[in-house]
Amino acid sequence: MFCGQTQIRVRYGETDKMGYCYYGNYPLYYEQARSDVFRECGCSYAELEKNGFMMPVISLNINYKKPAFYDDLITVKVYVKQKPTVRMTFEYECFNQNGELLNSGETVLCFVNKKTGKPSMPPDFFQEIINKYF
Amino acid sequence: MFCGQTQIRVRYGETDKMGYCYYGNYPLYYEQARSDVFRECGCSYAELEKNGFMMPVISLNINYKKPAFYDDLITVKVYVKQKPTVRMTFEYECFNQNGELLNSGETVLCFVNKKTGKPSMPPDFFQEIINKYF
Amino acid sequence: MFCGQTQIRVRYGETDKMGYCYYGNYPLYYEQARSDVFRECGCSYAELEKNGFMMPVISLNINYKKPAFYDDLITVKVYVKQKPTVRMTFEYECFNQNGELLNSGETVLCFVNKKTGKPSMPPDFFQEIINKYF
Amino acid sequence: MFCGQTQIRVRYGETDKMGYCYYGNYPLYYEQARSDVFRECGCSYAELEKNGFMMPVISLNINYKKPAFYDDLITVKVYVKQKPTVRMTFEYECFNQNGELLNSGETVLCFVNKKTGKPSMPPDFFQEIINKYF
Repeated sequence: MFCGQTQIRVRYGETDKMGYCYYGNYPLYYEQARSDVFRECGCSYAELEKNGFMMPVISLNINYKKPAFYDDLITVKVYVKQKPTVRMTFEYECFNQNGELLNSGETVLCFVNKKTGKPSMPPDFFQEIINKYF
Repeated sequence: MFCGQTQIRVRYGETDKMGYCYYGNYPLYYEQARSDVFRECGCSYAELEKNGFMMPVISLNINYKKPAFYDDLITVKVYVKQKPTVRMTFEYECFNQNGELLNSGETVLCFVNKKTGKPSMPPDFFQEIINKYF
Repeated sequence: MFCGQTQIRVRYGETDKMGYCYYGNYPLYYEQARSDVFRECGCSYAELEKNGFMMPVISLNINYKKPAFYDDLITVKVYVKQKPTVRMTFEYECFNQNGELLNSGETVLCFVNKKTGKPSMPPDFFQEIINKYF
Repeated sequence: MFCGQTQIRVRYGETDKMGYCYYGNYPLYYEQARSDVFRECGCSYAELEKNGFMMPVISLNINYKKPAFYDDLITVKVYVKQKPTVRMTFEYECFNQNGELLNSGETVLCFVNKKTGKPSMPPDFFQEIINKYF
């Protein structure tokens, strides 16, 4: 299993008139968490794109338990529980500064070769890095 | 069944470096569609809030089939297939101007009484309006 | 002079905890207005990009008079008062459904040739279209 | 003079199809910087709101020099050069990880008493904190 985490502070502009962090921000938070975790594991997503790959999102799933508020410091935990193939599944949990679970979710992403525009196995250098965890 | 639809033009700022409409915009598009459809059926969500209710989102689900691009004119179709109780389930389909299905999704929302902060049945006037469809 | 206008409905996710349409949304609204006005005048910005040009923003200026609220229907008026050269200046006024001025602003954009990455006069076909107005 | 700084990593969803960090994100980055700097100086903006004040933005001004890209680590420097009265002026400079100036800007904010809805001097406790710097 591969896991990591990142911290995100809720911006004022990310709240809505209910006073909550808008539900539509979490896909962005999940992406930032994914991105931070990739970078830490030694293979940034930016690198992956430079090597001719991109990773569109195929599905998104969020279960909201509690709202976050302005200025809350959210911890997003990311888990990759299965060795990536053409697809890579990420699971997420968001916690506030009091350790309360705000929401949990999942995204499935797909490796796409930019030249062919077709789904593809991840590049070798990425497989070497990520396969250590499985 | 209750259904409706709305049209949304993809803004430049809603695209990402892949050239696609960012996957994280669809929760916002779904919300706009919900909002437009509520208004048309004679009970705006703004009205509902003025009457002491709010509707936080409990779960979100999106399956992405094809990307949208800058300046695309997206049609979002919204379906409510079950009579709302404390919860209200919306289903969505996004199509581009060529009639291609971009993604489909679902959100479950909950009626909350602002005073008590507790889940609650929707207000009577709303039940009267919406129950005609079921 | 060249002018046009577009209408934008404030999304729930575009409000903030103050209950206002977040100040940071207006650059996005201005862009949408610019985009709609380009399209109407017979030369979409998408077209311009396909022809090898892009138009980064050089400066932005907004004076906020009154807030907009959720579900408000905003009219954005766009004015181009000077014939475009390498630069193109747009002025904006946002009004709510009661005709109240919400804010006014200005953006200066630059034509950039994608191949050279350098500022450039707009392409001939665009000059022909736009110069009719001056 | 009062100054501070914060760091922001550009999210994928904050880029646009040009590959740049969208120009409309900077008002959000400026707000985050303002917010972080308030918190550090011992008076969070959240605190200010709990004390019955809010600070709508009156004007915004940005001069864009260079674009930021996905995953760039931006440093936002914030300067308050004049003792706040009913209004408070913030100046900003954004730098990328190579120390290149990306843009500079200014926002003027106004203290508003939530009860009266009128512009007002900042609360005493805030004046005590901020006046040390002038």
